Amino acid sequence: MDISARTFTPPLPQLRTGLEARLACRAGAISGSTAGFAPGYVQGNLAILPKDLAADFLRFCQQNPKPCPIIGISDPGDPHVPALGGDLDIRSDVARYRVWRDGELIEEPTDLFACWRDDLVTFVLGCSFSFEEALLADGLPLRHIETGRHVAMYRTAVACAPAGPFAGPLVVSMRPFTPAHAIRAVQITSRFPAVHGSPVHLGLPHLIGIKDLAEPDYGEAAAINDDELPVFWACGVTPQAVIAAAKPAFAITHSPGSMLVTDLRNTQLAVL
Amino acid sequence: MDISARTFTPPLPQLRTGLEARLACRAGAISGSTAGFAPGYVQGNLAILPKDLAADFLRFCQQNPKPCPIIGISDPGDPHVPALGGDLDIRSDVARYRVWRDGELIEEPTDLFACWRDDLVTFVLGCSFSFEEALLADGLPLRHIETGRHVAMYRTAVACAPAGPFAGPLVVSMRPFTPAHAIRAVQITSRFPAVHGSPVHLGLPHLIGIKDLAEPDYGEAAAINDDELPVFWACGVTPQAVIAAAKPAFAITHSPGSMLVTDLRNTQLAVL
Repeated sequence: MDISARTFTPPLPQLRTGLEARLACRAGAISGSTAGFAPGYVQGNLAILPKDLAADFLRFCQQNPKPCPIIGISDPGDPHVPALGGDLDIRSDVARYRVWRDGELIEEPTDLFACWRDDLVTFVLGCSFSFEEALLADGLPLRHIETGRHVAMYRTAVACAPAGPFAGPLVVSMRPFTPAHAIRAVQITSRFPAVHGSPVHLGLPHLIGIKDLAEPDYGEAAAINDDELPVFWACGVTPQAVIAAAKPAFAITHSPGSMLVTDLRNTQLAVL
Repeated sequence: MDISARTFTPPLPQLRTGLEARLACRAGAISGSTAGFAPGYVQGNLAILPKDLAADFLRFCQQNPKPCPIIGISDPGDPHVPALGGDLDIRSDVARYRVWRDGELIEEPTDLFACWRDDLVTFVLGCSFSFEEALLADGLPLRHIETGRHVAMYRTAVACAPAGPFAGPLVVSMRPFTPAHAIRAVQITSRFPAVHGSPVHLGLPHLIGIKDLAEPDYGEAAAINDDELPVFWACGVTPQAVIAAAKPAFAITHSPGSMLVTDLRNTQLAVL
């Protein structure tokens, strides 16, 4: 889930597949969130790093698979990620990017042709859109979608396993559920380890260093009813925050909400 | 889990299989709990009813599969349940029985030869020993086993779906877990629907009518640490309580803790 990923909007009828969504981005027809685009297709978080940092970042992801589930990785300098789409150019197929130099956000272009380098390695990480689709399909209500808000996210006191310059706290997203729905949500999301998988915590937020659920670090607070428990999933904001903190000389991410829409189906990520 | 099923005792080396355990019961060598017998083999709750009540009870079980997961059922009058063991005589292979008339417990014999009738139908229902074995094998601690107590059980405000004379509240067992272990316990027990399956509730006991965790209706209270949540599973005491409340003219159950040990392996009950 991205920092400011908007809730599911009605799907655009003309963007039925991952390829159609990417072609629309490539054509400059999309400038914001891809939430609701190409229902059923996997959307991913983007992290692009120079080769000399990519090995450390890869190790970081492998050591922290719940916040950083890799679903695609490119060869150095190659703007294609064949595993995620046959006609996929990472320089143009995301609606809006963020370009970082020395940890500073310097621009938010709609393509990367001006700043592409032949040492860049692309990482695509799974996103909670996929498991949220599975939860909704099962009839579980998602408060942030019902109320048209961003999901609430929190920095925890749980440290990720560090790798090179990449280190920092686990960031989690929170969704309130009744106990029965929380149990069902554990079952459903456990099937999808490539998109954050099962929850990392539930019920006792202070144990992971969350002092006040009403004050999320990212996104917007969600009401938790008396008959509900807060359920926490590892969040794709974790690697973005870690990259920002590492202040690499050069890095590219997606602009919040502007995900890479792939050719993979969400159901293809189910482990069983 | 049976009302007074004792915690796992060290397995008796001579009772390595379900058949060996049954033969020991048959020989009169066992008079109490079968907890810890034949590790890896499925143990079951027993309910024996006259044919004229069996159809209603079967319907009750089918409508309430979490507390009443049927793993075996006999033909009327047949003391064998081939699905559960090749050499299995339900009249002798449980260590101690309870015989009920008009809802009154009238005796606790070690065999049923004196009271067997040719209209009796045997039901064997899954028991939490199986999923507890899977939890322990995964490294999850079970408080009641660590402290040598009975598991805590509670009548809830959740009504079972009634069938004929059979009706009553869902009874649940409670095990305290840290949030991470609770999530793992949901995953593990979800694989075993034939032995109560996933939890029915967690975290907010008042929502299911449990006023005071320190006052279980059956078994013994367990301490819940500050970093733990109570996790609730449907319990095999449910059908026993329902049968007692229905006051059938004649019924037989096992004596608490004296389960039927079958030839099935616990792992064979895993759905995946």
